[in-house]
Amino acid sequence: MGIWGADEAAALAALGLHALQHRGQEAAGIVSHSVEGFRQHKGLGLVGDVFNDPRVIASLPGRSAIGHNRYATTGATLLRNVQPLFAEFEFGGLAVAHNGNLTNAETLRKVLVRRGCIFQSTTDSEVFVHLIAISLYETVMDRLIDAVKQVKGAYSLVALTSDMMIGLRDPLGVRPLILGRLPHSGAWVLASETCALDIMGAEFVRDVEPGEIVVIDDAGVRSIKPFSPVSPRFCVFEYIYFARPDSVLEGHPVYTARQKIGVELARESAVDADVIVPVPDSGVPAAMGFAMESGIPFEMGIIRNHYVGRTFIEPTDHIRHLGVRMKHSANRVVLEGKRVVLVDDSIVRGTTSRKIVDMVRAAGATEVHMRISSPPTRHPCFYGIDTPEESKLLAATHDLASMAEVIGVDSLAFISFDGLYRALGHEGRDAMAAGYCDACFTGDYPIELVDKEGRLVA
Amino acid sequence: MGIWGADEAAALAALGLHALQHRGQEAAGIVSHSVEGFRQHKGLGLVGDVFNDPRVIASLPGRSAIGHNRYATTGATLLRNVQPLFAEFEFGGLAVAHNGNLTNAETLRKVLVRRGCIFQSTTDSEVFVHLIAISLYETVMDRLIDAVKQVKGAYSLVALTSDMMIGLRDPLGVRPLILGRLPHSGAWVLASETCALDIMGAEFVRDVEPGEIVVIDDAGVRSIKPFSPVSPRFCVFEYIYFARPDSVLEGHPVYTARQKIGVELARESAVDADVIVPVPDSGVPAAMGFAMESGIPFEMGIIRNHYVGRTFIEPTDHIRHLGVRMKHSANRVVLEGKRVVLVDDSIVRGTTSRKIVDMVRAAGATEVHMRISSPPTRHPCFYGIDTPEESKLLAATHDLASMAEVIGVDSLAFISFDGLYRALGHEGRDAMAAGYCDACFTGDYPIELVDKEGRLVA
Amino acid sequence: MGIWGADEAAALAALGLHALQHRGQEAAGIVSHSVEGFRQHKGLGLVGDVFNDPRVIASLPGRSAIGHNRYATTGATLLRNVQPLFAEFEFGGLAVAHNGNLTNAETLRKVLVRRGCIFQSTTDSEVFVHLIAISLYETVMDRLIDAVKQVKGAYSLVALTSDMMIGLRDPLGVRPLILGRLPHSGAWVLASETCALDIMGAEFVRDVEPGEIVVIDDAGVRSIKPFSPVSPRFCVFEYIYFARPDSVLEGHPVYTARQKIGVELARESAVDADVIVPVPDSGVPAAMGFAMESGIPFEMGIIRNHYVGRTFIEPTDHIRHLGVRMKHSANRVVLEGKRVVLVDDSIVRGTTSRKIVDMVRAAGATEVHMRISSPPTRHPCFYGIDTPEESKLLAATHDLASMAEVIGVDSLAFISFDGLYRALGHEGRDAMAAGYCDACFTGDYPIELVDKEGRLVA
Amino acid sequence: MGIWGADEAAALAALGLHALQHRGQEAAGIVSHSVEGFRQHKGLGLVGDVFNDPRVIASLPGRSAIGHNRYATTGATLLRNVQPLFAEFEFGGLAVAHNGNLTNAETLRKVLVRRGCIFQSTTDSEVFVHLIAISLYETVMDRLIDAVKQVKGAYSLVALTSDMMIGLRDPLGVRPLILGRLPHSGAWVLASETCALDIMGAEFVRDVEPGEIVVIDDAGVRSIKPFSPVSPRFCVFEYIYFARPDSVLEGHPVYTARQKIGVELARESAVDADVIVPVPDSGVPAAMGFAMESGIPFEMGIIRNHYVGRTFIEPTDHIRHLGVRMKHSANRVVLEGKRVVLVDDSIVRGTTSRKIVDMVRAAGATEVHMRISSPPTRHPCFYGIDTPEESKLLAATHDLASMAEVIGVDSLAFISFDGLYRALGHEGRDAMAAGYCDACFTGDYPIELVDKEGRLVA
Repeated sequence: MGIWGADEAAALAALGLHALQHRGQEAAGIVSHSVEGFRQHKGLGLVGDVFNDPRVIASLPGRSAIGHNRYATTGATLLRNVQPLFAEFEFGGLAVAHNGNLTNAETLRKVLVRRGCIFQSTTDSEVFVHLIAISLYETVMDRLIDAVKQVKGAYSLVALTSDMMIGLRDPLGVRPLILGRLPHSGAWVLASETCALDIMGAEFVRDVEPGEIVVIDDAGVRSIKPFSPVSPRFCVFEYIYFARPDSVLEGHPVYTARQKIGVELARESAVDADVIVPVPDSGVPAAMGFAMESGIPFEMGIIRNHYVGRTFIEPTDHIRHLGVRMKHSANRVVLEGKRVVLVDDSIVRGTTSRKIVDMVRAAGATEVHMRISSPPTRHPCFYGIDTPEESKLLAATHDLASMAEVIGVDSLAFISFDGLYRALGHEGRDAMAAGYCDACFTGDYPIELVDKEGRLVA
Repeated sequence: MGIWGADEAAALAALGLHALQHRGQEAAGIVSHSVEGFRQHKGLGLVGDVFNDPRVIASLPGRSAIGHNRYATTGATLLRNVQPLFAEFEFGGLAVAHNGNLTNAETLRKVLVRRGCIFQSTTDSEVFVHLIAISLYETVMDRLIDAVKQVKGAYSLVALTSDMMIGLRDPLGVRPLILGRLPHSGAWVLASETCALDIMGAEFVRDVEPGEIVVIDDAGVRSIKPFSPVSPRFCVFEYIYFARPDSVLEGHPVYTARQKIGVELARESAVDADVIVPVPDSGVPAAMGFAMESGIPFEMGIIRNHYVGRTFIEPTDHIRHLGVRMKHSANRVVLEGKRVVLVDDSIVRGTTSRKIVDMVRAAGATEVHMRISSPPTRHPCFYGIDTPEESKLLAATHDLASMAEVIGVDSLAFISFDGLYRALGHEGRDAMAAGYCDACFTGDYPIELVDKEGRLVA
Repeated sequence: MGIWGADEAAALAALGLHALQHRGQEAAGIVSHSVEGFRQHKGLGLVGDVFNDPRVIASLPGRSAIGHNRYATTGATLLRNVQPLFAEFEFGGLAVAHNGNLTNAETLRKVLVRRGCIFQSTTDSEVFVHLIAISLYETVMDRLIDAVKQVKGAYSLVALTSDMMIGLRDPLGVRPLILGRLPHSGAWVLASETCALDIMGAEFVRDVEPGEIVVIDDAGVRSIKPFSPVSPRFCVFEYIYFARPDSVLEGHPVYTARQKIGVELARESAVDADVIVPVPDSGVPAAMGFAMESGIPFEMGIIRNHYVGRTFIEPTDHIRHLGVRMKHSANRVVLEGKRVVLVDDSIVRGTTSRKIVDMVRAAGATEVHMRISSPPTRHPCFYGIDTPEESKLLAATHDLASMAEVIGVDSLAFISFDGLYRALGHEGRDAMAAGYCDACFTGDYPIELVDKEGRLVA
Repeated sequence: MGIWGADEAAALAALGLHALQHRGQEAAGIVSHSVEGFRQHKGLGLVGDVFNDPRVIASLPGRSAIGHNRYATTGATLLRNVQPLFAEFEFGGLAVAHNGNLTNAETLRKVLVRRGCIFQSTTDSEVFVHLIAISLYETVMDRLIDAVKQVKGAYSLVALTSDMMIGLRDPLGVRPLILGRLPHSGAWVLASETCALDIMGAEFVRDVEPGEIVVIDDAGVRSIKPFSPVSPRFCVFEYIYFARPDSVLEGHPVYTARQKIGVELARESAVDADVIVPVPDSGVPAAMGFAMESGIPFEMGIIRNHYVGRTFIEPTDHIRHLGVRMKHSANRVVLEGKRVVLVDDSIVRGTTSRKIVDMVRAAGATEVHMRISSPPTRHPCFYGIDTPEESKLLAATHDLASMAEVIGVDSLAFISFDGLYRALGHEGRDAMAAGYCDACFTGDYPIELVDKEGRLVA
């Protein structure tokens, strides 16, 4: 999230981060710049907790600011790991925030430490910062290009200097980054999703392109394309689960994509049932599509408790044994005596699905059928989505029948690849001109996994 | 919320309070009892914030506990106002928590202060506590009955002594209170709604009856009925808005009631439109009913941001002017170029409705029609629901046409009284054997408003 | 501590509490009164911690204020036990703070609870508050007199209403209370010791007399003497240890009293030695007097660490075994090879004395003689000084020789009663016209110990 | 402060820091090492506040630990500036803490930033860390020597790796560092003063020598002397004010040194008076020496309030005007009607002295003479003692007579240089074989002030 050229830029950045809260709930931070220099504030928790004091916002003056929500894929969340990272260079200050994962971060880190660089955090972003610091080039932009040519991975990045704001997507464009503009002030906005524009009344201008660097200063927006063009691979899981339903990514409204997947799913895996029930909230549009196509009524048979936070006490074994349902509860009047189709976005370990199925049966469902709006998740993501290792992925170790048994359903079906891509407007997976990254389903990793494969030179 | 006879009673009470979080988010407290005596813990904030530390739960030992979520109808939320209130009496300790409002609390308070009672809080509950303390009767139960005969109002109450747990509803049964039981331990549960049973796997036993006192101890449940029977007046707004959709109150599933209201509303106030859009979350079932009956597609055209907390920074005027939408955002793909029917539960001041309508129009809706699943709110509630004074209620000062103008809609309609009560299974308002309290719509207040009317003797 | 008639009364009260910090370090509180009513702030810890924020002081407006430092004689320090206590009565608000102990508090409490009073704290002050609340008299003053006639004990009390500030000493005047005045504003000050006047540049007016009530309002100071006069019994331990050396109590400078006790002690219990060493800080003046009289050099052979707070980590057994000295350290250059006379104010359990003696020997002292500036402490205090029960008082269970052995000294001597009272200007204990309370040394308790003796009617 | 080879090393380090609290009260930190790697804890405030929780100590396992108290000479105290600093290098982890100031830190910092080093703090210690990181040498020790040869300044340093603890004094030995040993375990201790040994029962082994590196590992202590020997210049102000009186530095007990200065001062600047009064606490030994030599009685005429913390509310102008005395109060009985000699350690700005003199006069002193146990402070210290710039030093801008007038005394005298050095056992300043740093009195700076003089190459 970044703002250039607006009064109270930090307050706008906080708003944008709030709209993007679903992309990371561990911690939040903002760096702003004014004539007084750079100021930062970071904290653990939700945006609304970290930026809940008007004095905090007042301590971040200036007309430019970048911010970040932390979504931890590994390790403890320490304050020093919260982005944006800021450093003073010979050429001045630079703040950096990124979304995604580098696949050669560990490898580069070893090289940099050997060279005398001292790391303060365990974040990939600090690799960028050191690469920029030691680059032999003169200008910030040359140093940034020098740095991004050395990293591999799936990432979008925003950076702020005293003179400009920079936005950048990796060459394959795996993670999203969009450009918007505030109507009256003409201020520029960079954000991961369009919903961050909507919250502040900004207009969508365009997606930043894969491999593109946009440089925003008071003269406007410049585009730099330091990479040779390759076929993009946008993360298909953003459509299935990660992005907010009211966002529009790469031209596709997420909500419509999910509904269409539900329609395809109903065509592929019809079932004779009384009611279509989404696992809220992410399963709702697909369940609506499924209901529409199948003609079976759509009902909110599962209620989500919206007050669940990260801090609630872990129940003891004694209490867990009672079948505690912290996050979801069954709406008995919808389920009792019914043949139920549950629609969810994915099955990872299978434990949550099992609990939900048990709860639905305990509420009196006579049959429970599960329909999943993604293909089976068989491989971990190394590109920015938190997934367990392969051995813990139910679909990596079980066939469809035994998955159904583990989860306790009468039938189980996943969307096919062709169905998925048809829903996104293509003829099917093989027929696509522009591709997606679907490595978590296929194992087809489009970016080298340097750290994982232990090679010192990528 | 109360638990009697279960290991880790306080942990179960915390679970129940979590399920009842929608009934009050200001503060939470639990008092437990064990051989070591009474222990309490209270704090400002959500249940998950107040009881987020296993050591806190461990500090509340015992097999009985009562808890409370604070829903402030007036004044500042201070720690000393957080329930349950606990006091040591000659006969031993007593903890009390109640839901609702006394209508003669101020009047009784003046009398008690004149008599030498010292109040530590500004809660109605403390009136109960002092009435019990000064009662000339011997036993706790006699003193409690002595006390409840002096108070007027709409309330449900749970109390805990070293020997028993007590549950009580006011004579008209305005506020709910239900009794449940845990399957294996046989422990008893009192709670405002059935969803608190579901979260811990407890079974619904029955509603506590209006005017009934249930006394729970190791011998089981006893019923005392100290009042002469009157026709009950359950709060109809619990069905419309306040209760959770998966709860069942007085035999009616809340979800079904809301859907049926939507059906009635569609029959009464049909409109030619392209899409039915709920104002989430409370408007969802009614919108589904409306869509079902009208045949117009139901779509999630408004997305609710579930991370909104009470602490988020208030935007400055400058930023508010941008049209900031902290809580809801428009899902443009559903709204653009469409004739939209918005379904919401009520209109209070009208300001929120206006913002939502503006947002929907800004997203491209060509027409916006508003349908409300309650009659116009014309009178304040003195019985436990937080409403502004009459002069601030839009429906108290505007006719339908000018309300539509204020809100900015093309058409506006409310459910009729007959439609509302048909949805609840009656022939209509006049035909009901058992009545409801609908004073906020009708001004027909079934319980004397002693404090309001300034009479010293009720 | 109380202020009447000064701008920023709460800030002055905080200053006075700071000067009186030695009388209680557990917690601090201030209640102020202005046209906006009564405001209070309380917290656990030192005055400087509780009142460290200008906004806190600003939240206590008005020209009158009373404050209190908590010195816990028993039980846990909870916020609700922190004084001043404030309550709303029929006649208006009243804040009360007291220093000392009631000897019939438990007995009165039982009676009050039986009558229907609900206690929120475990402090003696709340007994006053309830007695005032239930008094049948009309005016505050009559109710206060009604209350103080029912309590027994050793206490000084300040109270604040919207109209006046009240100061009061128990009939025997066991605990101190002095009246002062600010030079320019003419504002009145009540405090336990004169050092609270000095810090704010106020002038000493007079001691409040035993059994006297002073009533301060805008018309000046009125004196009420509701008790029949009895021979006063001021606490002699205030001179020996409790009061600050720069205070003047009942006409005697504390510093001079301590030095003279040292002189008498040197006369009574001379010893051939090389150096006189005080146990700082309270032993310093007596050691100076001892050195002066004996002609032996005075040296700071023990250094006190002034950063010791209540919160420092308790050393584990392993580390304690190393002979850790958190509070005092030996100044080897003064002690090595010397015959040392240690001068301290009292021996309670003997454990601290033992540690200090060991430390002095470890620093190379060839002989260690201990001289104590009080008689042996053989009885607990029930009048406001925290002492352990009798069985834990070393002097209650050991004769002089075995005390010397326990403590590890070559010789041990205490001041005699005659020496003590000569130092205070009398001929000796038996010859005194006006007496002192020296119950901790003699067991001669001048006020009935009602609670201790278990009588229901005092 | 450092510990090598003891169980609960972090707890011992906390004890030592507590004994050294007078050297820095802004913040405290400890890094420990065990088989689990390095762990750290840091916080703002006193040692007892930062390490007040047994769980904090338990989170610092291992048999080696170093710790630091922050004494801020400039700038805001931020957590990231709190030492020890820790960094991961190619060769493993290294923690560093130092006492003192580098005089070329800014200059080196600019060079390092230009080279690509990223600084996270504004501390001099981080310069060490980066110099070590980028050194071309292989071993830690070679890199450390490489680093210390590049820095200039007055500093003592302790460092910890997984294999050894290192202690180091600058070539002139301006700041102290001593080596001690625990009797039973044989664990080694490094600390700034011997009082840190006494608190844990450790024995003094020797001073680390100027320019010496001591390397402590399980094989014992090795000494490395990387610098060519020069005449040492120990800070004489450590004796006058900074060190604790019970410490022994460079063979001289601090307490004795201060007393002897008092003796010399009495000889040089006798005055006919009634009483010798120290400004506590640092003036006490010198006042005792003065009293001894002059034969005039020594009295505690000023009482220090030991509860003064850094956080107390700043009085408003209104209240300050009353002559508030937060830190010291006058003991009137000692001062009234007397000719008073005040003995203090130094005069810096003169404002504190003026306040004390006014207070003493207000308490009735007929004459006030001031005797100072140091020469006039005319120059700022760049070697680790916090002093204001020259223009704010009273003695830099006033002659003796006008200083006396500013302070309001009847006479004023400072110790002479010869008197000062005689007290330390020398014939006088010119006759000393081994010198001291007395730059704050003489302006004779023994170490180049590189940053101050703005030279890029030192």
